Amino acid sequence: MSPTPSAAAGPSGGAAPGGSGLAPGGSGPPGFGDLLHERVAARRSQLVLGLDPDPARLWPRALEIAATSGGERGAETDPGAAARTTDAGPGAARRAAEAVAIHCALAIDAVADHCVAVKPQMACFERLGAAGWSALAEVIAHARRHDLLVIADGKRGDIDVSAAGYAHAFFGHTQTPFGVVSGLGVDALTVNPLLGFEALAPLLAAARERGAGLFVLVRTSNPGAAEIQERRLASGATVSEHLADLVAQAGATGVGQAGLSDVGAVTGATAPERLRELRERMPASVFLLPGVGAQGGRVEDLAPAFSPGPAGGLVTVSRGLVHAHERDGGDPAQAAAREAERLRRLAWALVG
Amino acid sequence: MSPTPSAAAGPSGGAAPGGSGLAPGGSGPPGFGDLLHERVAARRSQLVLGLDPDPARLWPRALEIAATSGGERGAETDPGAAARTTDAGPGAARRAAEAVAIHCALAIDAVADHCVAVKPQMACFERLGAAGWSALAEVIAHARRHDLLVIADGKRGDIDVSAAGYAHAFFGHTQTPFGVVSGLGVDALTVNPLLGFEALAPLLAAARERGAGLFVLVRTSNPGAAEIQERRLASGATVSEHLADLVAQAGATGVGQAGLSDVGAVTGATAPERLRELRERMPASVFLLPGVGAQGGRVEDLAPAFSPGPAGGLVTVSRGLVHAHERDGGDPAQAAAREAERLRRLAWALVG
Repeated sequence: MSPTPSAAAGPSGGAAPGGSGLAPGGSGPPGFGDLLHERVAARRSQLVLGLDPDPARLWPRALEIAATSGGERGAETDPGAAARTTDAGPGAARRAAEAVAIHCALAIDAVADHCVAVKPQMACFERLGAAGWSALAEVIAHARRHDLLVIADGKRGDIDVSAAGYAHAFFGHTQTPFGVVSGLGVDALTVNPLLGFEALAPLLAAARERGAGLFVLVRTSNPGAAEIQERRLASGATVSEHLADLVAQAGATGVGQAGLSDVGAVTGATAPERLRELRERMPASVFLLPGVGAQGGRVEDLAPAFSPGPAGGLVTVSRGLVHAHERDGGDPAQAAAREAERLRRLAWALVG
Repeated sequence: MSPTPSAAAGPSGGAAPGGSGLAPGGSGPPGFGDLLHERVAARRSQLVLGLDPDPARLWPRALEIAATSGGERGAETDPGAAARTTDAGPGAARRAAEAVAIHCALAIDAVADHCVAVKPQMACFERLGAAGWSALAEVIAHARRHDLLVIADGKRGDIDVSAAGYAHAFFGHTQTPFGVVSGLGVDALTVNPLLGFEALAPLLAAARERGAGLFVLVRTSNPGAAEIQERRLASGATVSEHLADLVAQAGATGVGQAGLSDVGAVTGATAPERLRELRERMPASVFLLPGVGAQGGRVEDLAPAFSPGPAGGLVTVSRGLVHAHERDGGDPAQAAAREAERLRRLAWALVG
């Protein structure tokens, strides 16, 4: 593997959340903006590995490893599975989840030196039920061992006690009569603001308490995003722009020493023409930028995201890395590493 | 227990999804609208038991049962838990999840005869991790044994392969090299439309395939809902009204023989003055009506929801049932049953 940027990161322990960071200027962890600023600078990367594992498209090496680590049922694959729709029982879920965790760990091993964070997509773990949730916890632990930040892509949003429940699940812990149950302990979560920022308050409070952050959906990367987000309000702003103003307002009390707030925004790389306007409305928010690669977005178009500095934007790529070998040929891990380094350099050049 | 409406439901097996229903007029299951119409009529109830279990507020009987069913660690509770924040390990999560499942089963047993469905809140299970997800699956199976429909309250919304992942998790199954892994198999899911209806398409397709439905957030019950949902668009409609039009459009191809569509709407009982306008825009949608009780909504104000017929609205109550004994005194199960029957009668009277 080529010389890698993380060599500059020094010996950091990877303890959750975030390990070392800027001096917090008091008690408690550094805010998410400062944590991210420090990590991006140390790793010279704004690249985020998106993890949306499809059990039917795992790296062959993951299946090989799963086969040799077999449990009581053995780990033999079932070549006729694609033709059936009958549930194969909890054993299948457990083995599939194990293979998914191995696949994600291999992908992390391959590209970690070129990335600053991973972004597991909750849906892809939830479809394997309880076993999938266990696999997710393993993947998060593995990312921590590489000193990567973890952004859970759950697009959660609910009210009242339910919002508090998600806060416990992702950032906090739950008191039970049998002792304390820890949540996933991620560094950030994507959230949906349709219910209003009052509904997001419990999530933001829980995130802040541990130096974590939120990424609020503002302008998503999908073809149909405009249907609601680009509707113009009577005030003159679009719904996205209104959301951007609310993000800036919610984040104003969470701006760290590096000038970045702990309330970021999801702003799709597929609509780069919107980035400049959104950046003006959210000067301190980190932009999480999905949509590069499979969805058609280009890193070269994302410069406005980085105007607050190198950590002003995070470029998330999923299939473009994990399935790079399908386009470029060769070993999946090597193809992923090459593509990650290429994208890292492209993004870094925007702030050079 | 008093004579209960479910006596009229006849012998139905509770097989997922939905068991018996109107003749589908061809192959495949009946649509969600017809299924709901039939169930509401048979049970003479539009009441939905919301399940948002707090491990710190479980019914005492649930803890007693959990104690006698103890696993290798024993099931003794930990009276000092509230003072600690250190993770108590996977044993605590497993025991807490088991107690949560028992608590929910007891609540279902208590009120099933007065209800037509249960609505588990995903956040409250996710905070217990993998063990919580297993508990949720148990709770769903228990509701099926009482012939209740299951509405997962997850407020999901994502794009592309992620939307497909949620479709697998809630309505479908996932092909893996180790065999097929079934999802939760619910009858309906609450979804968030901020990403546009193109993003909801995979979820709607998967729901329809099994005769299930979606409830799209249109006007939520929380105090801050107005911040975005009641903003007026340049077109003159509010965001909620625009969403309502899109719900009606998406549901138009899924209207069953009973005149109800499989794309419903979440319309909070705390804003009853909006219901008439929303009903005009969504004439065939079932309204899921949270917010009665703890949040201040009143069943008596919900008449516009029921204009398409008895199954035009579903009144969801969580804490108002499960914690009825804290207000009314007496045994939790008996207090919940009494309150459920009172609310069932109030709602049924609106369509009498």
